Amino acid sequence: MTNTQVTLVQIDNYGPWTVTPEPRREVDLQTLQSRLYADLSQLIGNRGGYVFFTRFDNMIAVTNGLDESDHAMIQESVGNRYPVTVSLSVATGTTPAHALADATDNLQDRGSAQDKDRREILCGRTIGEDHRTDEDVEIAHFDVIDATGEYTDRLSAFETFIEIEQGYATLMKEMHGEHDALSFFVGGDNVIAACPTLTEGAYLDAIDHVTEVAGVDLRVGVGSGKTAHEAGMDAKHALEEARASGDAVWFAE
Amino acid sequence: MTNTQVTLVQIDNYGPWTVTPEPRREVDLQTLQSRLYADLSQLIGNRGGYVFFTRFDNMIAVTNGLDESDHAMIQESVGNRYPVTVSLSVATGTTPAHALADATDNLQDRGSAQDKDRREILCGRTIGEDHRTDEDVEIAHFDVIDATGEYTDRLSAFETFIEIEQGYATLMKEMHGEHDALSFFVGGDNVIAACPTLTEGAYLDAIDHVTEVAGVDLRVGVGSGKTAHEAGMDAKHALEEARASGDAVWFAE
Amino acid sequence: MTNTQVTLVQIDNYGPWTVTPEPRREVDLQTLQSRLYADLSQLIGNRGGYVFFTRFDNMIAVTNGLDESDHAMIQESVGNRYPVTVSLSVATGTTPAHALADATDNLQDRGSAQDKDRREILCGRTIGEDHRTDEDVEIAHFDVIDATGEYTDRLSAFETFIEIEQGYATLMKEMHGEHDALSFFVGGDNVIAACPTLTEGAYLDAIDHVTEVAGVDLRVGVGSGKTAHEAGMDAKHALEEARASGDAVWFAE
Amino acid sequence: MTNTQVTLVQIDNYGPWTVTPEPRREVDLQTLQSRLYADLSQLIGNRGGYVFFTRFDNMIAVTNGLDESDHAMIQESVGNRYPVTVSLSVATGTTPAHALADATDNLQDRGSAQDKDRREILCGRTIGEDHRTDEDVEIAHFDVIDATGEYTDRLSAFETFIEIEQGYATLMKEMHGEHDALSFFVGGDNVIAACPTLTEGAYLDAIDHVTEVAGVDLRVGVGSGKTAHEAGMDAKHALEEARASGDAVWFAE
Ligand SMILES: Nc1nc2c(ncn2[C@@H]2O[C@H](COP(=O)(O)OP(=O)(O)OP(=O)(O)O)[C@@H](O)[C@H]2O)c(=O)[nH]1
Ligand SMILES: Nc1nc2c(ncn2[C@@H]2O[C@H](COP(=O)(O)OP(=O)(O)OP(=O)(O)O)[C@@H](O)[C@H]2O)c(=O)[nH]1
Ligand SMILES: Nc1nc2c(ncn2[C@@H]2O[C@H](COP(=O)(O)OP(=O)(O)OP(=O)(O)O)[C@@H](O)[C@H]2O)c(=O)[nH]1
Ligand SMILES: Nc1nc2c(ncn2[C@@H]2O[C@H](COP(=O)(O)OP(=O)(O)OP(=O)(O)O)[C@@H](O)[C@H]2O)c(=O)[nH]1
Ligand SMILES: [Ca+2]
Ligand SMILES: [Ca+2]
Ligand SMILES: [Ca+2]
Ligand SMILES: [Ca+2]
Repeated sequence: MTNTQVTLVQIDNYGPWTVTPEPRREVDLQTLQSRLYADLSQLIGNRGGYVFFTRFDNMIAVTNGLDESDHAMIQESVGNRYPVTVSLSVATGTTPAHALADATDNLQDRGSAQDKDRREILCGRTIGEDHRTDEDVEIAHFDVIDATGEYTDRLSAFETFIEIEQGYATLMKEMHGEHDALSFFVGGDNVIAACPTLTEGAYLDAIDHVTEVAGVDLRVGVGSGKTAHEAGMDAKHALEEARASGDAVWFAE
Repeated sequence: MTNTQVTLVQIDNYGPWTVTPEPRREVDLQTLQSRLYADLSQLIGNRGGYVFFTRFDNMIAVTNGLDESDHAMIQESVGNRYPVTVSLSVATGTTPAHALADATDNLQDRGSAQDKDRREILCGRTIGEDHRTDEDVEIAHFDVIDATGEYTDRLSAFETFIEIEQGYATLMKEMHGEHDALSFFVGGDNVIAACPTLTEGAYLDAIDHVTEVAGVDLRVGVGSGKTAHEAGMDAKHALEEARASGDAVWFAE
Repeated sequence: MTNTQVTLVQIDNYGPWTVTPEPRREVDLQTLQSRLYADLSQLIGNRGGYVFFTRFDNMIAVTNGLDESDHAMIQESVGNRYPVTVSLSVATGTTPAHALADATDNLQDRGSAQDKDRREILCGRTIGEDHRTDEDVEIAHFDVIDATGEYTDRLSAFETFIEIEQGYATLMKEMHGEHDALSFFVGGDNVIAACPTLTEGAYLDAIDHVTEVAGVDLRVGVGSGKTAHEAGMDAKHALEEARASGDAVWFAE
Repeated sequence: MTNTQVTLVQIDNYGPWTVTPEPRREVDLQTLQSRLYADLSQLIGNRGGYVFFTRFDNMIAVTNGLDESDHAMIQESVGNRYPVTVSLSVATGTTPAHALADATDNLQDRGSAQDKDRREILCGRTIGEDHRTDEDVEIAHFDVIDATGEYTDRLSAFETFIEIEQGYATLMKEMHGEHDALSFFVGGDNVIAACPTLTEGAYLDAIDHVTEVAGVDLRVGVGSGKTAHEAGMDAKHALEEARASGDAVWFAE
C-alpha cells in the first residue's frame, strides 16, 4: 500500500507583491516563477522527489526521502536567492489526495496565503527512515498516442493545445474524484500522476473516460518505488513497453 | 484593428530526444523546459514581446516589434546553450488565431515536429516598421475574483487547482472558438489572452460562459498597444481598476 | 578613435546583506552572483554589449548601443527577480579606463557602496544615436598559446590555474597602466580587453611583458566596431587567423 | 588531520566546441559557463560540498560527503541539460593540493582535455562513510579589511579590481607553494581556501606576505568540519569574530 509524502509549496503573500508598488512586468514574473520551479525541481529532484508547477504560486511535490532538514534547507536556499519566500507544509497519507488535503489544512491553520505576517512556515511531519518501504510511491505516466501525427503536425498549434488541455482537464478531475490521485501536466502530451495503489481496471476506466469525454487517446505506464524518482523511472520504462506492445496500460515488472 | 505578430517556437525532434538512449530523468526535463521558457521570456520579453509556455515543447509568442534578425539571434542563443534546438515560425494576421494558424501551417510544410532532419527552421515574415500601429496588439488579463478567499484558503490545494484549471479550460476554448483569441494560463489565478479587437459584450459573454460552465467568477482588464508589453501593462492597470470598482470588464483609458 | 560607453553595475549594500541576520550559505551566494551575471550577460549581450563578472558585486560592462531606457529596464528586471538591487552608472570616453573612472566617480558621489539608503541609482549619459560610429569600440581577445599541451594536460589543475592567473594579473595591470585598457578574464585561458585605438606595437609590448614577468605566452586578435559584440566577434575571427598563421597579433581585416 | 576529498570538473573538449563551426557569441559562452557553475554550486552545495569556478572550463570542488553515485547523478544531470558534457575525477589526500594533483593525474591518464573521444569520464575513489571524521575539511575565509572605504568608494572600479586581484594572485600562490592549500576568489573582496590543518602562524605569515607584496590587508576566519559547508560556515562565523575583535586570524571555537 502506498504511503505518499506530499509537500505543498506556497509563495508567501505573492498576489500583493505582484502589484506593489504597481503591476510588475509580466515577463519578469514569468521568469521568476519558472526559475523558482526549475530550482525546486533540482533541489527536490536530486533527493529523489518530484515537484509539479501546478499554479506556480502553489506547487505540489512528492517528497518521500526528504526529511525536515532537507525541507528547511530548501526553504532557506529560496529565501537567499529570490525576492519572495516560500512556506512548506508536508503530510503523508495512504492516498496522495489525503496527504495533500492534510498538508493544505495545516498550512491554512497558520494563516491566509495572503497574510503578510505569515512567512516561511515549515510544518508537518515526514516519514521516519524506518517506516519507509519500496512501495510507498506509485507513479503513473500518461501519454497521448501519436500526438505528433494526430495533432501537432496537422492542427494549428492552439487547436492542438486545446485538445491536450481538455484531455488533461478531464483526466485530472477523474483521477482525483475517483481515485484520490494527483495528476499533473508536465509538458508536451504527458501527464504524471501520483497515485495510491490502483488496479489495471482503474487505469483503463480513466483512459476510457478521457476518450469519451475529450476524444483524446491515452496510454499509461505505471511504476512504484521508495521515491518518486524510482517509481517515475519505472513508469517511464513501462510506458516504453506500452508504446512498443500497443497496450493501453503497462505495469513495471 | 489588431495586427498581431505571432511566433510558434517548437523544440526540434524533442519527443525522441527525451527517451534516447533511454528515458531521461524527469526532473532534468522539467528543469530544461522551464529554463528554456524563462530564457525565451527574457529574450522575447526584453524586446516588448510575450511568450507563453503552452506545452513547453511548443510555445506561442506575441512578437510585434521583433524582426527577423531578432528571431535569428534568439534561435542561435538557444542553440548555443541547450542540448536541443528550436524552430521558429512567424506570421501576422488580423486575429491572433489566424496568425498562429498560418505560422503553424508554414512550419508543418517544412517537415514533422519529429523529423530528425528538420532543424532550426526560421520562416515567415515580420511586420515592417512602417506598417506598425499603436493598436496592433490587444491583451486581456483575466483574473479569478477572490481566489484566495474562495479557494486557496479553503479547499485542498488540488481542489483549488481543479477549479482554476476547469475555468481555464472553459475560457481558452470559448475565447478561441468564438473570438479567435489565444488564452494562456500564466500562474496563480491569471489568464492572459492575445485578442483581436473585441467589444465589452464579447468579454462579458466569455466571463458569463465560464461562470455557467465551470462555476468560476472572473474579471478582466483590457489594453492595447504597439507591443504585447505595452498592451499587457495597460491591461494590468485596467485590471486594477476593475478590482477597485467591482466591474467585470475594464478597458484601459 | 574609440568612444567607449562603459557601465558600472554595483549591487547595492551587498556586503551587509551577505551576513544579515547571520552569514548566508556560501553556495547560495555563489549561485546568486553567477546567475545575476548570466542574466546581465543576456540582457546586455542581446543588445550588443559585453559585461564582465569582475568582482561580481561590481561588474563592468561595455554598453555602446544601449540607451537610458535600456539601462532602466535592466535595473527594473533585476529588482523584480532578485533579493538585491543594482545601481548603474554609465559614462563615455576616448579610453575605456577614463570612461569607467568617470562612471565610478559619478556613482561614488551618490553615496557609499554600503550606504543602506543609496539604492537603484541610475546615472550618467549614453552616446546619442547620431554620435555613434563604426569605430567606437575596440576589443582585443587574448589567448594562451597551447594552454592544453603546456598546462592543462601536464600540470595539476591548480598549478595550471596559477599560471593562467599570474598571466592575467600581469596583463590586466600592464594594459591598464600603459594603455588605459580594461582586461577581463573570461574563462579557460582567455582574456578580453576593451581598448582605445592601439597599435600593433602596443599589443606586442604587452604580450612580451607577460612572457617576461609571468612566463605565459599569449596571442591576440583585435577587432573594432559599433558595439562590443561586433568588435568582439571580429576579434575572435582575428584570433583564429593568428592561431592559423602563428602571428602574435592579428587585426581584423 | 584533514582528509580532503577533491573533485576536478572538466568540460570535455570545450575549446574546439567554442569555435565550431565558427566562434560562438561570447555572451552565450559566458551565460553557459556561469549557469553551469551555478548549477554545480547547487548540486554539490546541497550535499555539503563547495565548488569554485576557477577557470570555468576546469572547476575544482571540495566534495567530502558526496559518494560515487552522487557524482554520477551530477554528471548525468549536466549531460541532460547542457550542450556540453563534463568529466569528473575525484581523489582524497592529507592536503587539498595533493588530492587535486592525484585527481588531475588520473584524468590526464584517460586522455587530453581536448581529446574528442574522451567524454564523461568518472574516475577516482570517494571516502567511505566509515572513514569520515569531523576534521576532514579545513576552510579559511579571507577578507580584505575595509575594502569599501579603502578602495570601492575611492578608486575607479578597475583600480579597485586590480588591487583585489593582485592580492588574490599573491595569496593563492603563497598558500599553494607554502601550505598545499587551494585558494579561490569568490567575489567582492573574499577568498576561500581549502587548507590542510594549519597553525595560526601559517595564516599570519600568509597575510603578512600579501600586505608586503601586494599592499592589501587581509583578515581570515578558519573553521573545520565533516564537510566544506560545515567548515565554511564556521569559518564565516570566525571571520565575523575577527571583524568584531580586530584580530587578523580567528579560529572557530
Ligand atoms: N515531460 C516529459 N515530456 C515528454 C516525455 N516524453 C515525451 N514528452 C513530450 O511529448 C511530446 C510528444 O512526444 P511523443 O509522445 O514521443 O510523440 P507522439 O507523437 O505522441 O508519439 P507516441 O507517443 O510514440 O505515440 C514531446 O515533444 C515532449 O514534449 C517525457 O518523458 N517527459
Ligand atoms: N502571472 C501573474 N500572476 C499574478 C499576477 N497577479 C496575481 N497573480 C497570481 O494570482 C494569485 C492570486 O492573487 P490575487 O489575484 O491578487 O488574489 P485574489 O485572492 O484572487 O484576490 P482578488 O484578485 O483581489 O479578488 C497570486 O498568488 C499570483 O499567483 C500577475 O500580474 N501575473
Ligand atoms: N570565454 C571563452 N573561452 C574560450 C574561447 N575559446 C576557447 N576558450 C577557452 O579556452 C580553453 C582552451 O582552449 P584553446 O585556447 O582552444 O586551446 P589551447 O590548448 O590553448 O590551444 P590553442 O589556443 O589553439 O593554442 C577552453 O577550454 C575554453 O575554456 C572563447 O571564445 N571564449
Ligand atoms: N562570496 C562572498 N562574498 C562576500 C561575503 N561577505 C562579503 N562579501 C563580499 O565582500 C564585499 C565587501 O563587503 P565587506 O567585506 O562586508 O565590506 P568591507 O568594506 O571590506 O568592510 P569590512 O570587511 O567589514 O572591513 C561585498 O560586496 C561582497 O561582494 C561572503 O560571505 N561571501
Ligand atoms: Ca505521445
Ligand atoms: Ca484574483
Ligand atoms: Ca589557447
Ligand atoms: Ca571586507
